[in-house]
Amino acid sequence: MDEDGFALEEAHVCVIGLGLMGGSLAMALRGQVSRLSARDVDTGVLQAALKRGVIDEEAGPVGADIIVLAAPPHRIVEIVPGLNASPGALVIDLGSTKVRICAELDRLPEGVMAVGGHPMCGLAENGFRHAIPDLYQGARFVLCETARTTPQARLRAETLVRAVGATPLWMDRHRHDELTALTSHLPHLLSFALMSLAIEAAEHDSLLFALAAGGFDGATRLARTDESMLVGMFGTNAANIRNWLSKMRGHIDRLEAMLEEEPALEKTLREIVQARRAYTERFGERPIA
Amino acid sequence: MDEDGFALEEAHVCVIGLGLMGGSLAMALRGQVSRLSARDVDTGVLQAALKRGVIDEEAGPVGADIIVLAAPPHRIVEIVPGLNASPGALVIDLGSTKVRICAELDRLPEGVMAVGGHPMCGLAENGFRHAIPDLYQGARFVLCETARTTPQARLRAETLVRAVGATPLWMDRHRHDELTALTSHLPHLLSFALMSLAIEAAEHDSLLFALAAGGFDGATRLARTDESMLVGMFGTNAANIRNWLSKMRGHIDRLEAMLEEEPALEKTLREIVQARRAYTERFGERPIA
Repeated sequence: MDEDGFALEEAHVCVIGLGLMGGSLAMALRGQVSRLSARDVDTGVLQAALKRGVIDEEAGPVGADIIVLAAPPHRIVEIVPGLNASPGALVIDLGSTKVRICAELDRLPEGVMAVGGHPMCGLAENGFRHAIPDLYQGARFVLCETARTTPQARLRAETLVRAVGATPLWMDRHRHDELTALTSHLPHLLSFALMSLAIEAAEHDSLLFALAAGGFDGATRLARTDESMLVGMFGTNAANIRNWLSKMRGHIDRLEAMLEEEPALEKTLREIVQARRAYTERFGERPIA
Repeated sequence: MDEDGFALEEAHVCVIGLGLMGGSLAMALRGQVSRLSARDVDTGVLQAALKRGVIDEEAGPVGADIIVLAAPPHRIVEIVPGLNASPGALVIDLGSTKVRICAELDRLPEGVMAVGGHPMCGLAENGFRHAIPDLYQGARFVLCETARTTPQARLRAETLVRAVGATPLWMDRHRHDELTALTSHLPHLLSFALMSLAIEAAEHDSLLFALAAGGFDGATRLARTDESMLVGMFGTNAANIRNWLSKMRGHIDRLEAMLEEEPALEKTLREIVQARRAYTERFGERPIA
């Protein structure tokens, strides 16, 4: 129990959306809360979650102490205005963009608490069938203040984040969307564009994919992500993605211009390699999200 | 012993360049040949290879039955004209581009045999210290005919490829360079460009790298490749890389134009995801090269 009288072990947590992220969160909370309920558009997933004991019941947010919105970002934006959160409940989401979602959370009724959330973890494959209880272990979990973030909301959100093994990282919603547009959304777009080009090329030469190896596999692995997740990610953060894409073109052009300029190319590439290796030293190498 | 009287177990193999590829090849051949010699610009690497018993001696190509050129592509092009290959020897290279290298192999003295080679395997980190004996296991190994490719040369090259655990795949040199410019060289360039953009962005916001996770790591992993390898790869295949880059820009532009067009975006992304997952079903997911 924290200083505001909230005890996670006595809480009812309701998860809206039992995909990879929501399902993994429910698994991680198992045994740490008094009651776990869930909603999902796929009744087969709900039945599987009930059968495996991941959730206690199929039920909506009424009466829940914590409501976790784990649908794709563009669906979260649609869900929040009609959400039946009880007074005193904390609403938190797991969406990969924060500005549009937090703007909806700002408008929840006074008395309902709300924090925007984005756990920095994932897997290339989505869906409840890929959910694992330790997905959040060791991950940074971005939290964004909203107009409904009270001191109690902060504590409760941090308690939830720590309960699944992650570390809270409070950040302004605009800064989050700008930075993740580069670190996550742009890599997704490039991965899809490269795979799209390869599909076109393979129509002209069937040996193309037979020549691809680990470099190609890694560069296109994000193109395995469910399109429903991508549509929300791209659609709710388009301006930031466009901004980085414009800068990205400049970096591509610069490298293209020096393809055959050996000394300049070698110096430029060396600086990038050194920075990338220093990054590995600092953060390790993580499986693809 | 094959039908031409060549027996690998009686052969002297000389490896020029003991990096990741040459070192791993030497390790894989250990015990399967009568003598392994090597040359490298780094005397420390040669001493380490001698000490660990990976090679029998530091010696050049004179008298060798098989000479493996395992330097970066732009160095191979420089090495071939002055190569002291004995008559009857087979010269084969491991360079990641084939047109420029095979043009040099074409000009070797008659009596010397030559085949262009490119094993489709690797690791993000280069150098002898990362060499492993099973790097070639299960990999496709492209072989290109040259003006010095006799029937005996074909047999000897295939014997070498199979001895290290790989599968020969004969292919025209131009077709190889065109296809690998897409499957390998372009992903390298994109990975370097993205890391370059991230370095620039991190100068303005120090939290950038703290927000990066598996997606970013995977998308920039090829930017750990030694710059000396990249300079050769880019410089000897620039025209093909430029051609694919031009097409790649079209695919990026197309996705950017539909960032907020939900139905069109979802349909386009779904087709790409399905193709990428079908690719995984067919080839598996390989560690990055």
